[in-house]
Amino acid sequence: MNSKDFERKLNGYIEFIENRLDKLLEVKYPSEIYESIRYSVFAGGKRLRPVLLLASCEMFGGNLEDAADFACAVEMIHTYSLIHDDLPAMDNDDFRRGKLTCHKKFGEDLAVLAGDALLNKAYEVMVHSVILRKNAKLVKAMEYIAECSGMDGMVGGQVVDVLSEGKKINSDTLLYIHKNKTAALITAPLKAGGIIGGCLEKEINLLEKVGYNIGVAFQIKDDILDVTSTADVLGKPILSDEKNKKTTYVTMYGIEKAQCDIESFSNEALDIISCFGEKSDFLYEYIKNLITRVK
Amino acid sequence: MNSKDFERKLNGYIEFIENRLDKLLEVKYPSEIYESIRYSVFAGGKRLRPVLLLASCEMFGGNLEDAADFACAVEMIHTYSLIHDDLPAMDNDDFRRGKLTCHKKFGEDLAVLAGDALLNKAYEVMVHSVILRKNAKLVKAMEYIAECSGMDGMVGGQVVDVLSEGKKINSDTLLYIHKNKTAALITAPLKAGGIIGGCLEKEINLLEKVGYNIGVAFQIKDDILDVTSTADVLGKPILSDEKNKKTTYVTMYGIEKAQCDIESFSNEALDIISCFGEKSDFLYEYIKNLITRVK
Repeated sequence: MNSKDFERKLNGYIEFIENRLDKLLEVKYPSEIYESIRYSVFAGGKRLRPVLLLASCEMFGGNLEDAADFACAVEMIHTYSLIHDDLPAMDNDDFRRGKLTCHKKFGEDLAVLAGDALLNKAYEVMVHSVILRKNAKLVKAMEYIAECSGMDGMVGGQVVDVLSEGKKINSDTLLYIHKNKTAALITAPLKAGGIIGGCLEKEINLLEKVGYNIGVAFQIKDDILDVTSTADVLGKPILSDEKNKKTTYVTMYGIEKAQCDIESFSNEALDIISCFGEKSDFLYEYIKNLITRVK
Repeated sequence: MNSKDFERKLNGYIEFIENRLDKLLEVKYPSEIYESIRYSVFAGGKRLRPVLLLASCEMFGGNLEDAADFACAVEMIHTYSLIHDDLPAMDNDDFRRGKLTCHKKFGEDLAVLAGDALLNKAYEVMVHSVILRKNAKLVKAMEYIAECSGMDGMVGGQVVDVLSEGKKINSDTLLYIHKNKTAALITAPLKAGGIIGGCLEKEINLLEKVGYNIGVAFQIKDDILDVTSTADVLGKPILSDEKNKKTTYVTMYGIEKAQCDIESFSNEALDIISCFGEKSDFLYEYIKNLITRVK
């Protein structure tokens, strides 16, 4: 796929997601909660997770309309996790994506509620979609997303991350954190998109491996950028892991091995995704770009 | 229904719920999150919402097994809302049900995550149940619960409650708070139980009215107990509304009218529920007891 076609496709997905999110989060009473949510949802995120969901769905010949609400739901879950992660009781961050964090802008009470509201809204949106479309595959997609977002997935990873602050942890624990805190919510949209698109059971297993490898590579990249980039480029303070006394891939293995392992994990993801042949061209390019990102 | 039969039935429901919750929240890795959740879930709650769900399901001839996971899900949503409500950034309460609140016991970071984990778990449990039981009515039950728990329900009520602290509010706003913060998550289990039990569309509307009336009566009772009871009886500090500068039914109308209105709201609920005839005997008694409760 040439870079012009790739960009056109990517921008098409992103526009599709932005429009749908805008509609799903239309301001109603009480407006303050919608405003705080919209502030965080429309803060300039990459839309990584919804793009993966839509692209995975299309790779198997699925219909974007069937997948649209699920793509938005995954972005809502991702955004709620950022809002709660930034809270003073958690990472205590004042900036995200170059803007004040939700609690700095709207107060801690509204930020707690904005996170809660977004998580609940994600499920509202999915369950409405299931009822509207009467498609049993959508229920399975919801199950993948629910499992990856909870205690056996993202929240589990966050818990171990929080409990590990200031402690020496071993490589298994670090991998558990990366796998669950980050990779789970990358695996979920790939699997959900796949099942909505009509993939087979064995293909779900491949998508799971792709998600794991992208997710870990993505998190190692984050760890590297936290020490090598600047606050201006990232839109948030650098050296935040050091501030929070967190063991990262970089502190555990050094920057050279970290760089090298990003290559291995992403090559593994690329090898697997290319098994799906020509129809995986977009995802192949997209994964390649993720690894070379600068923010 | 005589009081012995009533007690037997109530205790049967409660035991059924406790056992199911215990199984659904079995401790796994990372154990800290399960322990913090179990601490709050098994803190001696009345199980009001799950009892309403099971009783509503049985009133229409439904099967308790179909409703069990939904009953637990509603209790998980209720418990997450208490954990987050008690946080320093919200009501800043140190005690609940005679025990330290979740954040006082496990720290604020784990309390935020315990709430998030419980909300997500509620949906995991419901979606698993939908897949296992292949029953389309369960999807509709999930929709009722999702709608009542989010921005158009409980979270919306909490937002207006938080924003109204220290301000003079009018009676419409107070009713909005009571209806959404409290009554929504009482209406949801009645409707969810009803649909799982096989009730008709028009009966859902009646259940909604019952929920609204019980919910508002229940909240007025809470407002009264906050000024007339003792911390020992309630298991939490009294005069908390005054501390948080909240307008309550009591501060707005005085205690006499508040008492009187509890009667009106609960009589309305009792009148409607008795339309369902003999099979509503348990719910009739249960609602009556709710209003005369002392904690």
